[in-house]
Amino acid sequence: MRAAIAQAEKVKGNTYPNPPVGAVILDADGRIAGVGSTQPVGGAHAEIVALRRAAGLAAGGTAVVTLEPCNHHGRTPPCVDALLAAGVSAVVYAVADPNPEAAGGAASLLEAGLEVTGGVLADEVAGGPLREWLHRLRTGRPHVTWKFGASIDGRSAAADGSSKWITSPTARADVHRRRAAAEAIIVGTGTVFADDPTLTARPTDGTEVGRQPLRVVVGQRDIAADSRVLNDDAPTMMIRTHDPAEVLRALGDRTDIILEGGPTLAGAFLRAGLVDRILGYIAPMLLGGPITVLDSVGVRGIGDALRWRFDQVDRIGPDLLVSLVPE
Amino acid sequence: MRAAIAQAEKVKGNTYPNPPVGAVILDADGRIAGVGSTQPVGGAHAEIVALRRAAGLAAGGTAVVTLEPCNHHGRTPPCVDALLAAGVSAVVYAVADPNPEAAGGAASLLEAGLEVTGGVLADEVAGGPLREWLHRLRTGRPHVTWKFGASIDGRSAAADGSSKWITSPTARADVHRRRAAAEAIIVGTGTVFADDPTLTARPTDGTEVGRQPLRVVVGQRDIAADSRVLNDDAPTMMIRTHDPAEVLRALGDRTDIILEGGPTLAGAFLRAGLVDRILGYIAPMLLGGPITVLDSVGVRGIGDALRWRFDQVDRIGPDLLVSLVPE
Ligand SMILES: NC(=O)c1ccc[n+]([C@@H]2O[C@H](COP(=O)([O-])OP(=O)(O)OC[C@H]3O[C@@H](n4cnc5c(N)ncnc54)[C@H](OP(=O)(O)O)[C@@H]3O)[C@@H](O)[C@H]2O)c1
Ligand SMILES: NC(=O)c1ccc[n+]([C@@H]2O[C@H](COP(=O)([O-])OP(=O)(O)OC[C@H]3O[C@@H](n4cnc5c(N)ncnc54)[C@H](OP(=O)(O)O)[C@@H]3O)[C@@H](O)[C@H]2O)c1
Repeated sequence: MRAAIAQAEKVKGNTYPNPPVGAVILDADGRIAGVGSTQPVGGAHAEIVALRRAAGLAAGGTAVVTLEPCNHHGRTPPCVDALLAAGVSAVVYAVADPNPEAAGGAASLLEAGLEVTGGVLADEVAGGPLREWLHRLRTGRPHVTWKFGASIDGRSAAADGSSKWITSPTARADVHRRRAAAEAIIVGTGTVFADDPTLTARPTDGTEVGRQPLRVVVGQRDIAADSRVLNDDAPTMMIRTHDPAEVLRALGDRTDIILEGGPTLAGAFLRAGLVDRILGYIAPMLLGGPITVLDSVGVRGIGDALRWRFDQVDRIGPDLLVSLVPE
Repeated sequence: MRAAIAQAEKVKGNTYPNPPVGAVILDADGRIAGVGSTQPVGGAHAEIVALRRAAGLAAGGTAVVTLEPCNHHGRTPPCVDALLAAGVSAVVYAVADPNPEAAGGAASLLEAGLEVTGGVLADEVAGGPLREWLHRLRTGRPHVTWKFGASIDGRSAAADGSSKWITSPTARADVHRRRAAAEAIIVGTGTVFADDPTLTARPTDGTEVGRQPLRVVVGQRDIAADSRVLNDDAPTMMIRTHDPAEVLRALGDRTDIILEGGPTLAGAFLRAGLVDRILGYIAPMLLGGPITVLDSVGVRGIGDALRWRFDQVDRIGPDLLVSLVPE
């Protein structure tokens, strides 16, 4: 299953509105015969790619998939049929398909006499490669990750506004990798005025960027025509509002969105309850001063604090990467 | 050695100006024959306690000690003599004694024909039970740990000043355990006015508090006579200055001091370069607003940020405990 998850992670961002799925076919002796992941929309599902690679070796083998194999005729024929045709004798999957249209795959496989095991590493998949897709299916809204970089005392820039670089090259490379998997990057006009960022995905680890995410600038003010965010490296959308819900409506057909700040816009999204995950890159430095990572989130007393939960904490180079999800 | 470290941790705070040391005596077959730790000043060293417990079983055995056995006649006779008298055939220690008076123990043991191994888990001991004592020996100053509790966005209280409780009971219990091992707890008058804290060590994990740490309030203003910090639970010292160096001079005979804030006093100590370790308890909540964990540390641009290094990062209940040391 870990190999299947790695396959899914590889295509995350290139499959929406389809789920990024990974599959591994084991032959009858339990050796890996083929791996695959979801192809871009209209292309094959992960199981089909893996079966093709496995060729004749799938017969009597096991298919390991991160999502329950689909059972419906969409743009592609049902994967259940392909698995039966290939003669696999067992199917192991992580997450059950919550999509009523596609579901029922496990039941059909069982009926056909296969050994079927569901729920294997389900939390890891549901919180990992499928997180944004599942969120969209459940809520009808894009999944929003608020990403910030800060010093240990919660500052996103020094007193004079300088913020290059608070976090390390390792942390920045991770941001670019995540941008490459996202469909849109949102900032407020304030960040464009202060930092003039390019906001493109420029991974340094060799990750290929299939297409650049849409750059989104939110606010009433005009930004300079020569702002980097308006260059030709990626498409850009200006949304002249202060209402986070309106921003998400304008991006409604997307699944995975990163909110990169600054403090004013992040506060507005958080107050509106429209942040689904927080990713903080925390550098081991102290800055003090007036520029905090977040201004006001409408909290008066400790009783109305916005409460989250650490779901992952990792060292990343000299920095810390904390991931939080709603409590 | 891990057992010896645990012995040392147990007495941390009760031995200064002597080092908190732990010792384990293994018999000739490598079984634990006795354990011991440094007794309060004037009492026996760790090796002696452990040898006594081991009684006759030490002969031909091994002594494992967190600090090189001492070689001088102080308040107690040299541990080297006791180890030789007991007939141990090998000595393993972590940290070499940097005290020129006490050093030379390893050399004498070698000369007497014992097998001697130094440096075992030395970093763990030097950064753990012996950290504050070694610092004092090296610098002549007490070791200052700045402890703060904050939300993930760097706030130490909500907008209305309420800060009870940002961190969890588990984190608070850890603070009380650390207070019990410290010799003084420093706050500014502002914290007394805002929070009226008691500042005593009240561990909930059964740790015995041998003596309460001295409570120290720094600032020119008079605090109310009925402030909790002036109650009878522990001694209290008022230091009417704004100069951190003067504060440390007034506490100069101490080894392990915790600075508990607030932001003004912490900033002054940090600017003065008088913080030796940062311990941050970070809660997974967002508060926003004007009360940050630190006000100004004199940093204008990112180039003069105060740079530290994460030396430990742990989950503690729902919170995060980060430990930083100077870069
Ligand atoms: N470390 C990090 O992760 C990071 C990331 C980004 C930015 N920053 C720092 O953040 C600073 C910029 O802060 P900022 O707060 O000005 O940036 P911002 O939040 O990106 O932009 C603020 C602007 O967003 C618009 N806006 C959109 N929705 C709003 C709402 N609900 N309420 C109010 N305004 C809304 C307003 O633009 P109009 O006035 O045009 O209507 C407002 O002026 C810079 O110092 C930058 O370096 C740091
Ligand atoms: N979360 C935490 O870990 C934590 C811990 C402690 C406090 N807090 C919060 O911090 C807030 C209190 O903040 P605060 O900054 O007023 O507290 P503070 O730093 O404890 O006290 C400030 C006072 O310290 C004195 N002082 C000593 N050295 C100084 C210097 N070099 N420069 C200026 N003043 C110096 C001054 O007193 P005089 O005016 O009397 O001279 C000053 O008013 C409260 O909201 C409290 O809840 C949070």
